[in-house]
Amino acid sequence: MSVTITSVEVHDVRFPTAARGDGSDAINRGDYSATYVELGTDAGAVGTGFTFTNGRGNEITCAAVRALAHHVEGRTVEEIAAEPVAFWRSLSADVQLRWLGPEKGVIHMATGALVNAVWDLRARIAGKPMWRFLAELPTDELVASIDFKHITDALTPDDAAAILDKGRDGLADRLSTLERDGFPSYTTSVGWLGYPDDKVRALTRQAYDDGWRAMKMKVGGPLADDLRRARIIRSEIGPDALLMMDANQVWDVDEAITAMTALAEVDPYWIEEPTHADDILGHARIARAVDELTGGRCRVATGEVAANRVIFKQLLQAEAIGVMQIDACRVGGVNEVLAELLLAAKFGVPVCPHAGGVGLCEYVQHLAIFDYLRVGAALDGRMIEYVDHLHEHFVDPVRTRGGRYLLPDRPGYSATMNPSSIAEFRFPDGPAWR
Amino acid sequence: MSVTITSVEVHDVRFPTAARGDGSDAINRGDYSATYVELGTDAGAVGTGFTFTNGRGNEITCAAVRALAHHVEGRTVEEIAAEPVAFWRSLSADVQLRWLGPEKGVIHMATGALVNAVWDLRARIAGKPMWRFLAELPTDELVASIDFKHITDALTPDDAAAILDKGRDGLADRLSTLERDGFPSYTTSVGWLGYPDDKVRALTRQAYDDGWRAMKMKVGGPLADDLRRARIIRSEIGPDALLMMDANQVWDVDEAITAMTALAEVDPYWIEEPTHADDILGHARIARAVDELTGGRCRVATGEVAANRVIFKQLLQAEAIGVMQIDACRVGGVNEVLAELLLAAKFGVPVCPHAGGVGLCEYVQHLAIFDYLRVGAALDGRMIEYVDHLHEHFVDPVRTRGGRYLLPDRPGYSATMNPSSIAEFRFPDGPAWR
Repeated sequence: MSVTITSVEVHDVRFPTAARGDGSDAINRGDYSATYVELGTDAGAVGTGFTFTNGRGNEITCAAVRALAHHVEGRTVEEIAAEPVAFWRSLSADVQLRWLGPEKGVIHMATGALVNAVWDLRARIAGKPMWRFLAELPTDELVASIDFKHITDALTPDDAAAILDKGRDGLADRLSTLERDGFPSYTTSVGWLGYPDDKVRALTRQAYDDGWRAMKMKVGGPLADDLRRARIIRSEIGPDALLMMDANQVWDVDEAITAMTALAEVDPYWIEEPTHADDILGHARIARAVDELTGGRCRVATGEVAANRVIFKQLLQAEAIGVMQIDACRVGGVNEVLAELLLAAKFGVPVCPHAGGVGLCEYVQHLAIFDYLRVGAALDGRMIEYVDHLHEHFVDPVRTRGGRYLLPDRPGYSATMNPSSIAEFRFPDGPAWR
Repeated sequence: MSVTITSVEVHDVRFPTAARGDGSDAINRGDYSATYVELGTDAGAVGTGFTFTNGRGNEITCAAVRALAHHVEGRTVEEIAAEPVAFWRSLSADVQLRWLGPEKGVIHMATGALVNAVWDLRARIAGKPMWRFLAELPTDELVASIDFKHITDALTPDDAAAILDKGRDGLADRLSTLERDGFPSYTTSVGWLGYPDDKVRALTRQAYDDGWRAMKMKVGGPLADDLRRARIIRSEIGPDALLMMDANQVWDVDEAITAMTALAEVDPYWIEEPTHADDILGHARIARAVDELTGGRCRVATGEVAANRVIFKQLLQAEAIGVMQIDACRVGGVNEVLAELLLAAKFGVPVCPHAGGVGLCEYVQHLAIFDYLRVGAALDGRMIEYVDHLHEHFVDPVRTRGGRYLLPDRPGYSATMNPSSIAEFRFPDGPAWR
């Protein structure tokens, strides 16, 4: 039975988070927003996807979705599934629109929203949550979904097939583990820069009591403030829990090394985005310095604004990262994420997906679970970021227990917002913005 | 006398070039377009700037200009000139819009259009062409115009000041040389992929007769076709003229090395964009291979889609390029170009700006001239790209003689379009598009 995508609708949805200081860090202070896509079909099934933005400018990614929509409207799910790379390239390598990236920024984020909506549709038609839909795909279909263009010097289709075939071994056992325990995660809700010390202490204590044993704080303010806040968190969580730090690109390379020389005192587990997201060589230098400073206890993490698979490829080739933080919708959706998960596996670097924002937790839980079941095949060092914001706007929100994600079980990519939330927060005409 | 910017207007201007095959290469086939910005002031003076796009999606960069315009409207030229980095960061590091890049793609191209319009306004108020306005700025004002954030590991303010101070020596002599001879250039009009062999031969012969001694062809089609076309051009221009090749990112790293092993036969002077624009490590590998293949005669060139100064910094640090091809409006306008010119000088790599498209020749002539007068201070290996398209739409079009650019002498950045062209080609309501 053929399913034709008959409509592409896009909504500009914004939540007024800036005023509360949630999501404030060294670089960003935004109204968490989504460029939200709904695909209609002639078979009743729908697909939804989105890309996350930070408030102002969400209308630009919406415009980019409209510019790309003609590559999606009128296509059948069957022909997309039969030639997934051809479909992906129709968006990512459009002969006119590619100039606006290429494969980065607004145009690539819009690609991600549309591509994810198509995958959501496919998983819903199959009646499976996305993680299961992906984990049960034959190796050749997964490999055929990946555009190896510009990454064959690091990962070939044969490499990918070997990893995915090997990933079948023990899959049922790993699934049982997840069904029993859930997926490990960490929380970022304790240490935003906008929060006063008392709030940081109270949130840390609450998170620890709730079962979290890994917490992330923002750094990149005055170094003395960063250190004071870090000591508060460390004193609350004791020596064994993990404390991660996120600088959101605020430092130059040498500043990052200087800062980490001081912050090493509180035994950080990783330093995230220590410098500009495009600076592969800079991250590599920082990684070597941090490794030396901490005797290998601290690693460099990045990825939430890494533009595409070519950037991730190089971060791995240069040994610049010890943790890879894929984002579900900054890159070109599920197809490109598959390439990134396989690159990470090839280089032996654990993936800890970036979440928070709007709906990112909902998205990436599927990717992390698939990674564990079929690609990385180990839990060592793997955690999903968790931020306790805005889940109430989703039809199938994440569920956690004792600091772990429970397996989502409804069909699709968990990307569907409540119609009432869309109506309330649609910009600029929703009641929340009037 | 204070000048306040009172209005920011943006026009979506598109020229229907796709149908003719002009501008066709291995990746792009577009309707050359401009996101065109006009700044009005309370003093009568105006400023114009634009960013170049490839047709579809020009409405997206227009939307991005509108999202950024509030950082420009209401500012005085004096306060911008007094704190140029603060102004630049108000656009490039807007706490909400930065997420859409950061510093790349649509949002950064829009920044470039606005920033260039402000520089055009400043030069016009000073009554000088942009190259002269920049060349005559005191060193400290130039240094104060550069955001060194994220590049201090390669170029410090002191490094920049030393280069710019040294650039005063002999400046008058270099200016006399340019006034007498013009600025060297090369032509890209002979070998677009869309052209048949006969047209390539005829255009090559014509260009040679017109005085050009450096020509660029597109490669990245079937290798046999590339080689056949290259032989045609080489046979027409003889062994001494320069033949450059441009692959527009179509190859993977190993494919690039294989292709250049064959194409080395025609003694290419550079291979441009051999692989994905973000692949610094890949370019470095190709550069080493090409150097070995050609005994150092051929170098790697890139830059037209390099997103920002951090990418250029790394291309230089990794010794990945022997020619740096800055673009005037993909990066964040004059301020960021200054950083890039100084990085190139620090690393001893010549700058050959990317031109063509709409108005890029008009823009970059000023940058190349300033580079020669005050930064690089030598002509060795320096050429401006020349493409003979669409100049008729500009009020102050480039002028060439015998394959060299003549010095522009009207105040400003030569970025102003004829009102009749804007009216005719405005999308979608201009007569050309109705």
